[in-house]
Amino acid sequence: MPDVQIRIPGNPGEYPVVIESGLLSRISPRFKPFEGRKVAVITDENVAPLYAERITAALDAAGVRPVVRVLPAGETTKCMDQLEGLYDFLLTSGITRTDAVLALGGGVIGDLTGYAAATFLRGIRFIQVPTTLLAQVDSSVGGKVAINHPRGKNLLGAFYQPELVLIDTDTLSTLDERQVGAGLGEVIKYGCILDAALFERIEACGSRENLAPLYPEIVARCIELKGQVVFEDPYDRGLRMILNFGHTLAHAIENAAGYGEILHGEAVCIGMVAAAAWGTRLGITPPDTESRIRHILTDYSLPIEIPSGLTAERLFPSMALDKKASGKEIRIVCLEKIGRSRTVPVPAVRLKELMEQLSSAPRCQDANPF
Amino acid sequence: MPDVQIRIPGNPGEYPVVIESGLLSRISPRFKPFEGRKVAVITDENVAPLYAERITAALDAAGVRPVVRVLPAGETTKCMDQLEGLYDFLLTSGITRTDAVLALGGGVIGDLTGYAAATFLRGIRFIQVPTTLLAQVDSSVGGKVAINHPRGKNLLGAFYQPELVLIDTDTLSTLDERQVGAGLGEVIKYGCILDAALFERIEACGSRENLAPLYPEIVARCIELKGQVVFEDPYDRGLRMILNFGHTLAHAIENAAGYGEILHGEAVCIGMVAAAAWGTRLGITPPDTESRIRHILTDYSLPIEIPSGLTAERLFPSMALDKKASGKEIRIVCLEKIGRSRTVPVPAVRLKELMEQLSSAPRCQDANPF
Repeated sequence: MPDVQIRIPGNPGEYPVVIESGLLSRISPRFKPFEGRKVAVITDENVAPLYAERITAALDAAGVRPVVRVLPAGETTKCMDQLEGLYDFLLTSGITRTDAVLALGGGVIGDLTGYAAATFLRGIRFIQVPTTLLAQVDSSVGGKVAINHPRGKNLLGAFYQPELVLIDTDTLSTLDERQVGAGLGEVIKYGCILDAALFERIEACGSRENLAPLYPEIVARCIELKGQVVFEDPYDRGLRMILNFGHTLAHAIENAAGYGEILHGEAVCIGMVAAAAWGTRLGITPPDTESRIRHILTDYSLPIEIPSGLTAERLFPSMALDKKASGKEIRIVCLEKIGRSRTVPVPAVRLKELMEQLSSAPRCQDANPF
Repeated sequence: MPDVQIRIPGNPGEYPVVIESGLLSRISPRFKPFEGRKVAVITDENVAPLYAERITAALDAAGVRPVVRVLPAGETTKCMDQLEGLYDFLLTSGITRTDAVLALGGGVIGDLTGYAAATFLRGIRFIQVPTTLLAQVDSSVGGKVAINHPRGKNLLGAFYQPELVLIDTDTLSTLDERQVGAGLGEVIKYGCILDAALFERIEACGSRENLAPLYPEIVARCIELKGQVVFEDPYDRGLRMILNFGHTLAHAIENAAGYGEILHGEAVCIGMVAAAAWGTRLGITPPDTESRIRHILTDYSLPIEIPSGLTAERLFPSMALDKKASGKEIRIVCLEKIGRSRTVPVPAVRLKELMEQLSSAPRCQDANPF
């Protein structure tokens, strides 16, 4: 298939996303705009052995001077301590405002590196080379960068667009199946909220094996869709909220289960099933939608049920459904049909009822619990 | 005199700067856009006893819920530790994305608070109430926010515009003379680089006493000028550099003297005299310019000579004039005449010569050393 090149609206200008199977083996010319500059490659212990050398060699060949920093893998790296360590590394390496940082890895590396890029010297050049499916279809475009705070995920961050995003879908072959699944959950989410044809295509493939050859175009389509949403709402004040389909419950599950126990993309799958059920009870979502979502997730070996032990009561506080917030309205994302979505304000007490109905409802007969 | 209201181009929109003598005593209606929200007032130990109560009462009266955080006064507050403490305070206070922070104080409070506003929850609403002359004419508009790093000033920061700037020039009467002077240095700088009429007006007043009644319009004019520059170059990639007139030497003096020993605005005064001298030797600046700048600074009791003990050799490294950089070009700001400026690339070796000539040059007979 032909190379895919998408331009995402950024600030100050738009930026290209290059999506190719095998891109890493011919990536060097893409670094020409950085010739004569330094590029700090930030990666983690899992990704470094696989791709760091190829990236530094490609930078060298393009006349760019690379320096490399390898961080521990995992969500805990997205913290203030690692950020400060990164600043020290950039200072020690003599990185200036016309140099760049390059994030080589998944969402954790992308978010942390992007946040460092946004704040070091009031902003330096930033390249994303995402190597997980989740980072490729979601976090590497749109400009949301952040670190976690002991009190919650992504509490410290900025909107900061990369100057270039380079995606080699072949990197997905080195991911474990659970990581691929977490990304597939987000891919299916794009189908649900914005693109019935994408949803149907994934539905028709019916398994991860059948879908794998289509990754370049599937990734490209997801990025195109995200680009449209980000263009309309760069600072996350309205439309962009639809990207949070399934996230109301997902965030609560991640919070209650402890981060890392359940992957974000997995929690989103469970959340999408719940959001479809809520939408139907609210009279917005057609009744067969929940079942279709359960089906597609099951075909792709993705979770659909709230993990046992996580009762509604345990999930309430992080959904702002505790007593203090009971007078409030919570905005959730509902599907008007597969491929069309909107946000809906729901009184906290009503959402609490919906949550309780969810826990007590008999399971659909046609869906296997995960 | 009438109220002055200036609109500064920001991102995403422009924002108003209100400049009035006595504004604090009738500030409450200005907070109406925040009705029903929380506003975290961030201030320091010097400013809190003077104005914090008036601000919180005004917020209360406007239906806004204030919370207050008082930080130690001084440049060392602009650090990572205080920033983290501020994040904790905002979280504990339950500040959300639709709430605001208000910086009440000088440049240190404005820069730190603005940086917290830029990065907390990827950006929350931000109000500036600058109470020093330097903050009023310079740091409170234009969107540069930052904290210091042990390795240098303002190394961590962002471009983040306030939504509202409220300036009561009466607060200047509580400043000590040295603080006023530091601001006057920057005011004279605006005259030098952009506005001969402003320069001549200050020249004609001839003393701080005579100038004081004109503060509202002088401050307004400086902000107007800065707004024009920021509009052309929001991300500091070109034109904005002219605001750094006098700063090449000033930064080196601050570095070598230790921050706090000499105030930024004082160092800029010395730097402007030097930059005028360099400009003349480079054939750009008319020969009488240095003398005019020495005169006006002396009239306003501002320093014009490099503090004894700070030899050229001690100043070289932070001007990037050390051996490592000797092949490089340094961009300095020169005056084509009073009121017109441009940046000039100067080879490091040439600038070194100019620095040495400066140290050995006989002083102008008509200028008093400070």
